[in-house]
Amino acid sequence: MARIYSKRQAPHLAPPLVLILIYAGLIVLGCAALKLPFATTTPITWSDAAFTATSAVTVTGLAVVDTGSAFTLFGQAVVMLLIQLGGLGLMTFAVLILSMFGLPVGFTHRLYLREDLNQTSATDLLALTRMILKVVFICEFVGAALLASVFVPEAGWGEGLWQALFHSVSAFNNAGFALFPDSLSKWVGNPIINLTIPALYILGGLGFTVASDIWRVRRWHRFSLHTKLMLVGTIALLIWSALAFGIMEWTNPGTLGSLSWSDRLWASWFQGATTRTAGFNTVEIGNLTDGTSLMFMTLMVIGAGSTSTGGGIKVTTFIVLLLATVAFFRQRSSIQVFGRELGLDQVMKVLALSIISVLLILCALFALLLCHEGDFLDLAFETTSAFGTVGLSRGITGDFDGAGRAIIMAVMFVGRVGPLTLGFLLATRRPRRIGYPAGTVYLG
Amino acid sequence: MARIYSKRQAPHLAPPLVLILIYAGLIVLGCAALKLPFATTTPITWSDAAFTATSAVTVTGLAVVDTGSAFTLFGQAVVMLLIQLGGLGLMTFAVLILSMFGLPVGFTHRLYLREDLNQTSATDLLALTRMILKVVFICEFVGAALLASVFVPEAGWGEGLWQALFHSVSAFNNAGFALFPDSLSKWVGNPIINLTIPALYILGGLGFTVASDIWRVRRWHRFSLHTKLMLVGTIALLIWSALAFGIMEWTNPGTLGSLSWSDRLWASWFQGATTRTAGFNTVEIGNLTDGTSLMFMTLMVIGAGSTSTGGGIKVTTFIVLLLATVAFFRQRSSIQVFGRELGLDQVMKVLALSIISVLLILCALFALLLCHEGDFLDLAFETTSAFGTVGLSRGITGDFDGAGRAIIMAVMFVGRVGPLTLGFLLATRRPRRIGYPAGTVYLG
Ligand SMILES: [K+]
Ligand SMILES: [K+]
Repeated sequence: MARIYSKRQAPHLAPPLVLILIYAGLIVLGCAALKLPFATTTPITWSDAAFTATSAVTVTGLAVVDTGSAFTLFGQAVVMLLIQLGGLGLMTFAVLILSMFGLPVGFTHRLYLREDLNQTSATDLLALTRMILKVVFICEFVGAALLASVFVPEAGWGEGLWQALFHSVSAFNNAGFALFPDSLSKWVGNPIINLTIPALYILGGLGFTVASDIWRVRRWHRFSLHTKLMLVGTIALLIWSALAFGIMEWTNPGTLGSLSWSDRLWASWFQGATTRTAGFNTVEIGNLTDGTSLMFMTLMVIGAGSTSTGGGIKVTTFIVLLLATVAFFRQRSSIQVFGRELGLDQVMKVLALSIISVLLILCALFALLLCHEGDFLDLAFETTSAFGTVGLSRGITGDFDGAGRAIIMAVMFVGRVGPLTLGFLLATRRPRRIGYPAGTVYLG
Repeated sequence: MARIYSKRQAPHLAPPLVLILIYAGLIVLGCAALKLPFATTTPITWSDAAFTATSAVTVTGLAVVDTGSAFTLFGQAVVMLLIQLGGLGLMTFAVLILSMFGLPVGFTHRLYLREDLNQTSATDLLALTRMILKVVFICEFVGAALLASVFVPEAGWGEGLWQALFHSVSAFNNAGFALFPDSLSKWVGNPIINLTIPALYILGGLGFTVASDIWRVRRWHRFSLHTKLMLVGTIALLIWSALAFGIMEWTNPGTLGSLSWSDRLWASWFQGATTRTAGFNTVEIGNLTDGTSLMFMTLMVIGAGSTSTGGGIKVTTFIVLLLATVAFFRQRSSIQVFGRELGLDQVMKVLALSIISVLLILCALFALLLCHEGDFLDLAFETTSAFGTVGLSRGITGDFDGAGRAIIMAVMFVGRVGPLTLGFLLATRRPRRIGYPAGTVYLG
């Protein structure tokens, strides 16, 4: 009975399936568009086109061809469009799903809707979508204007404006695609690049719920718990990653060692900020020490925020993991933070999401190791980068053959649509129906 | 008030502190004994002695000197004694703590004691301890007798009996110390070695609660939930690891490739079984493919059973992690298994234990990478091996300098006493006193 009833309530395709179909469809279309003769300067293979389309739609940024030289203006525009649709699409989808299920999205009180999908009026959703689009386009326009002040003097009006627009869209959507073979290394010490690009990807990575909460409320003590956790977590992670990167790479001749003092500081900030999901770089990632690479892998798994353009298990998930551990040591059976309490059901969600993520990364790495010769650390780094839709690489993306590419493409896809699909499952959890006697197992 | 009351109830040193002090004391004594002039054939450094003592007391088996040739009979006897005390001590301690806190240890109904420490009579605990000792010594004696049938014909009565006793004790306690530089590779195809040694370490690794439950109850449907999970989990992991090892290494000339068909099967069984915590090997671990090495690392983290001589996060913890994930996908908010229900509090314990373990491994590996040059995979493998008190190595244990050794020693120590200390914290969890309003964070 219960099943029939819930079926009647939602007779449409399940939203996660819609999401997966949309993303798969975008990739197919993007692949076809990139394979058009006038999209590339020299012909690329279907495999190249499929990989680039997947990387763009999942806003990852791993590349098997050089975006700036292999694609014509049309090809680059296709990549930019795929990035915009892939990044914006997921953000919008996430916000719409949250609002459908009555979770506060922080935009307007009208959108605190109940669980029944039918109560969400199309007008409300349309208004919300329009709001998201407006915010995104304003951010990208301002970003492009600022970037143009660097690119236009160097490349002229036409080329410079295009570069500014492309990198602004790529940055806000945390895509990490750049038009230069060494990403943004040329501007390692340029203040405008070092402030504008990170501002765009950090903003995009905070997520729409946080951005709108900040915009609407503007006072710390009235922020939602989610916003507070995201802000504290993001700032802490930025400080930690920039500091650790700077200290560990300071004298490494392959990265910071060859730069001036001020460039080293800029590069530490940029690399520290880019790692969780943005994927741009201003130093050569393949030259990182093994210790920094390990730290980067942990940051790539953590990722950015919910309802954002970023990937990973999400900052809030990471914080709840830490809080649960602290609560455990303080011998509490619940998590208290900022005067709110997180129930055990949230812990269970976090646990499931983390386990699935770890299993996914391990299985993918295992498969890669079986079918591809290569350094263990390089492959582990690449897999983690694909999972977190980060796009940083130690330089082996081009080496993959068919099977290796297929694995990385699958990880990028699951890394992008997986967490939201799980998030949907969380929101539709059924209450248990049968109780069993409690059991105990010894775990220590 | 509540704190004063609980202090009155338990005026002794906290059991975890006792455990830590005992283990630290054993290591110091062992180090001093191994440094005695007549303990070694050629003088060893204090660092060598400390590392060996730590490895023996924590039943890990990582070695910086060759146990068989560097130590005299006295020195080897010290190592064996440290193994016995380290393995047996923790098992006994764990069982005693469980029984003190009224958790069923499956041995006798008299021992279902309440939470108050004072209600546990010394007689009960003594009887339990005597029972444990009896079981352990019978197992080790039978094991030694079987092993003697191999070693005595090869090495004569004196040497052969000693080797049989040493390896029986080392195997039952999951220590992995062998008297031969290539562990047990010489007997890669010997059925007695391939059955006796694994039988000892699997039995030791199941844990006392499981062994006594099997001994006492003898019927599947009356086994405790813990016993059922341990048996199913252990068998599944044995099958998986032996199969995967065999398939992946079958044609690797450095491991199985150079062996006969029957030896390959024996070696697959032995390596599959040894990896979770025992630490013996019959093929060269340094020659494993990267894929197998990754699989081995996951097995080393999983480890053996609670109240056992083995390490790791424990098989039951791993199973609860998987069950929580499955429950999540089935949209249940509790875990049902074998007609019992595991509450969310158990999930929280599992989460805390897993997070702490992962953080420990990552921090140790990070520290190792900073202070020691070496291959990333080798160092990751070594760290995981130390955490799981496994003792398998890709051959770099001897390369570590002071800092590297100190890190590995610390990881072995925490890997051994950490989980039980946490287990104690689990058992003494306080109920929360203040409720906060519920908060929500978005995790997907
Ligand atoms: K990216
Ligand atoms: K061991």
